[in-house]
Amino acid sequence: MTTRQIADRRVRDRTVFIVSDGTGITAENFAHAVLTQFEGVRLVQERLPFIDDIQKAREAVVKINDAFRRDGYRPVVFSTMVNAEINAILHEACAMHLDLFQQFVEPLEIEFGVKSTHTVGRTHTGASSQAYQDRIEAINFSLAHDDGQTHKDLEQADVILIGVSRSGKTPTSLYLAMQYGIKSANYPLIPEDFERAALPGPIKQYRDKLFGLSIAPERLAEIRNERRPNSNYASLENCRYEVAEAERLMRKEGIKSCNSTAKSIEEIATTIITDFGLSTRAY
Amino acid sequence: MTTRQIADRRVRDRTVFIVSDGTGITAENFAHAVLTQFEGVRLVQERLPFIDDIQKAREAVVKINDAFRRDGYRPVVFSTMVNAEINAILHEACAMHLDLFQQFVEPLEIEFGVKSTHTVGRTHTGASSQAYQDRIEAINFSLAHDDGQTHKDLEQADVILIGVSRSGKTPTSLYLAMQYGIKSANYPLIPEDFERAALPGPIKQYRDKLFGLSIAPERLAEIRNERRPNSNYASLENCRYEVAEAERLMRKEGIKSCNSTAKSIEEIATTIITDFGLSTRAY
Repeated sequence: MTTRQIADRRVRDRTVFIVSDGTGITAENFAHAVLTQFEGVRLVQERLPFIDDIQKAREAVVKINDAFRRDGYRPVVFSTMVNAEINAILHEACAMHLDLFQQFVEPLEIEFGVKSTHTVGRTHTGASSQAYQDRIEAINFSLAHDDGQTHKDLEQADVILIGVSRSGKTPTSLYLAMQYGIKSANYPLIPEDFERAALPGPIKQYRDKLFGLSIAPERLAEIRNERRPNSNYASLENCRYEVAEAERLMRKEGIKSCNSTAKSIEEIATTIITDFGLSTRAY
Repeated sequence: MTTRQIADRRVRDRTVFIVSDGTGITAENFAHAVLTQFEGVRLVQERLPFIDDIQKAREAVVKINDAFRRDGYRPVVFSTMVNAEINAILHEACAMHLDLFQQFVEPLEIEFGVKSTHTVGRTHTGASSQAYQDRIEAINFSLAHDDGQTHKDLEQADVILIGVSRSGKTPTSLYLAMQYGIKSANYPLIPEDFERAALPGPIKQYRDKLFGLSIAPERLAEIRNERRPNSNYASLENCRYEVAEAERLMRKEGIKSCNSTAKSIEEIATTIITDFGLSTRAY
């Protein structure tokens, strides 16, 4: 191997381990956010979840050290380990350790003047808690109230998304339920509503809960063409008509809205939560 | 206010700000994981998303300083700010700053030998990328293939969850799609399958993709009773029968499975990904 190849490998083939005594999802999301800021660095990522005893920690160390030997460069380890003893074993691995809890928990202990509980698996709300049950109920609610399927219990909705077909209502609705336990219904705006120039009857009384999603007609036509190619439904002309009418209706009724075209589900959900001032808790 | 009241407030009323130039969801999840380790500390949490220019950063500083004056103790700020200039303004706030990126990006720049891109809003995959489209498609796939609704395109599934009614298939399926873009179908096991002692016909050919969810009969009876109180469907006796038969069938057919009773959606999803060795990417 020439020096040049070694230099190339340096920025191309690094192994990143996500190690956690829980699922590792918090560490994985965090690592993703940090690592996307490094373009041109080719990384192979491996998640080692449920490392919750000494034996499993030893096995993790072996895996990390194997990667070190294989790559020729020390792996990067993002970890969220609550138990100090198990964590100490993990730190024996030859790696760059980015210990998410150690970096933040200790300074917070000093700041709050209390010790942390150091309890494994507390990062997500336990499956038996009321909060968790509420979350599952919200997911079921969002599913049952997808695309205006039912008007039953609509008064229980925290938010009702409206918009033309394929404007992003369903994924946003499910995300609000999954991530935050928010009961989100969604209701389509269809040509009949535009002819009447009025909100659909069943949702009129819930005006305070309505949030509109709009979308660029060009993008909408693309999305609809994947489903029903060359239909009137998917034609740019019809998409332009529907979007213009939906926007007109939302303006007239004074309904909050946002344009979903260039926004991810997370960005749309965050906009809705901020606009409504909804209180949230992460799970 | 007496000294004692002040002492009480010290560990009870702290304001936590989540500040980001994006949605702040990564920081929020991370803060949640860290803060759940502090029992008895009462925290009021406020998320300030989309702080992506100097003016907004200045407004955030005012809010944080207001909380300082109100609480009598400096707020805790979890932040993920990519732009250094905007971040510098945020750091003028009187607070305990837990700067997630600063702590990790700089050491990684040294480790990788490259500079980070410092691009705002890169923590989530942009709404127009192929990866993002794949994710939306996976969500639509999981919805269309919920509860055995259709057998169409089942060969495209990455995984097919099976189990008795209300064993947790639907939320897990949606989570796999939402979080990882995994195409997950789910298919119920019903009394007719147990009488035949065989897998449902349409999914037999996809044995390698099947993953079973089991559940404690007592918990299943609780869940079913919320839906259909005092029915045979929800009776403990029937739940015991269905669970025992489903487990027998999965064992006989050599299908991987896990017990969902005490597991969160994230834990079940992580178990499935690990068992199948599915490659994942966070969004």
